[in-house]
Amino acid sequence: MGRVYLVGAGPGAPDLLTLRAAEILERAEVVFHDALVHPQTLALAAHALKILVGKRSGRLSTAQSFINKRLVDAARKHGVVVRLKGGDPLLFGRAQEEIDALRKAGIDFEIVPGVTAATAAGAELGVSLTRRGLARHVAFVTPRAGRGERENDWAASVLAADTAVIYMGAGLAEAISAELIGRGKPKATPLVLVESATLPERRILRGTLADLPALALKAGSGPAVLLLGEVLRDALADRAVVAIPEIQAHLRRA
Amino acid sequence: MGRVYLVGAGPGAPDLLTLRAAEILERAEVVFHDALVHPQTLALAAHALKILVGKRSGRLSTAQSFINKRLVDAARKHGVVVRLKGGDPLLFGRAQEEIDALRKAGIDFEIVPGVTAATAAGAELGVSLTRRGLARHVAFVTPRAGRGERENDWAASVLAADTAVIYMGAGLAEAISAELIGRGKPKATPLVLVESATLPERRILRGTLADLPALALKAGSGPAVLLLGEVLRDALADRAVVAIPEIQAHLRRA
Repeated sequence: MGRVYLVGAGPGAPDLLTLRAAEILERAEVVFHDALVHPQTLALAAHALKILVGKRSGRLSTAQSFINKRLVDAARKHGVVVRLKGGDPLLFGRAQEEIDALRKAGIDFEIVPGVTAATAAGAELGVSLTRRGLARHVAFVTPRAGRGERENDWAASVLAADTAVIYMGAGLAEAISAELIGRGKPKATPLVLVESATLPERRILRGTLADLPALALKAGSGPAVLLLGEVLRDALADRAVVAIPEIQAHLRRA
Repeated sequence: MGRVYLVGAGPGAPDLLTLRAAEILERAEVVFHDALVHPQTLALAAHALKILVGKRSGRLSTAQSFINKRLVDAARKHGVVVRLKGGDPLLFGRAQEEIDALRKAGIDFEIVPGVTAATAAGAELGVSLTRRGLARHVAFVTPRAGRGERENDWAASVLAADTAVIYMGAGLAEAISAELIGRGKPKATPLVLVESATLPERRILRGTLADLPALALKAGSGPAVLLLGEVLRDALADRAVVAIPEIQAHLRRA
């Protein structure tokens, strides 16, 4: 019986993987990965069978129950099985369904946390999500809910928080903007949409909460987060762009 | 003129550093670091002058304005200057004050995000902070505020969120518990205190919101996060303990 590692691949750039994740990938015999995992990250698993089970909202994807079953089956045949997810597996990664299936089957597992898109996006903007005197609480939310789920009052969380980061929200821009403004969030609240954070194709679209639908129309199809709150005010000016890291240089050691 | 790298050292274990951070540390000429950064992480900066400017709440620490000045001065003398902070620099890391000082002085800088304590703690518990049908929003908050800061309604954020993670809260356990219960959060809300997450000395204390003051008395002086919400319910049983990773094995490549 093997062990299953639920591993966070980080926000996009392959060198934002942790040392621990890299070491596990090098030993991996099987890797079940999402569509968004970078090819250079997958390449670290040089000896592994790589199986795409990726989920992307609105696209065809492997049913969760089938992924669960494959993880359990793989752990019965192999020593080191990796489930590699973009970002951090415990933030919007649907990890709990896999954890529960592994526990139920008596399979040993370990979770390797990763860098999540929210702080990666903040890093590219040069904006701290918290700030003494201005932002002492941050909400990470998604407005998406599956069929039959209980009501998801994501907006209450955004309204209560000093800073909010909305995951998987770019496709719901109209509804997000209308809901938050309708419930009293100022239209002029600074908002930045960061698409494909940390990757060469990343895009940064700046505006206000009222501009969100227009900004989302300009965005592409890459994964995006919306950052919202007073901490973003300085980032609305162009001067706030931070140098794009030299990814290749950092990867020399990977 | 050099570049200043504001680098997240991750939640504690040295192999939860990113590949990018490791590569930068290897090139570093000067490293200004917090007290909580692991010695093995610092050791990666083999050629650097290492300067402790650590802050720990309630202890003597270097004034922020003096740290800012030293970063600027160092970047004028050296090529690669690192400011190494525990966790992620953009979550409760006071990074904005340093970013603003660097911008004002015209110093080039780059932010390297890290794994934050919230998801590292969740990883050790085997609990996803989000969960379809149960938790679609997570608040990261601190009840701490500096003198003269505007009112910090951290509790509103906790009350609105499905899952909450409270940073730097163990020393304020009585006040946190009383405030949240007084404002309607159920006393029986599952709560877990994770101290020194990802380190060999880590401690996990399980209970409910009403138990928080008693749990905090049992905790030591290590950095702690409080996780609160229905997603923690299964983690209250002992069966939910996840294997402690073999840190040394993962570090072979570091």
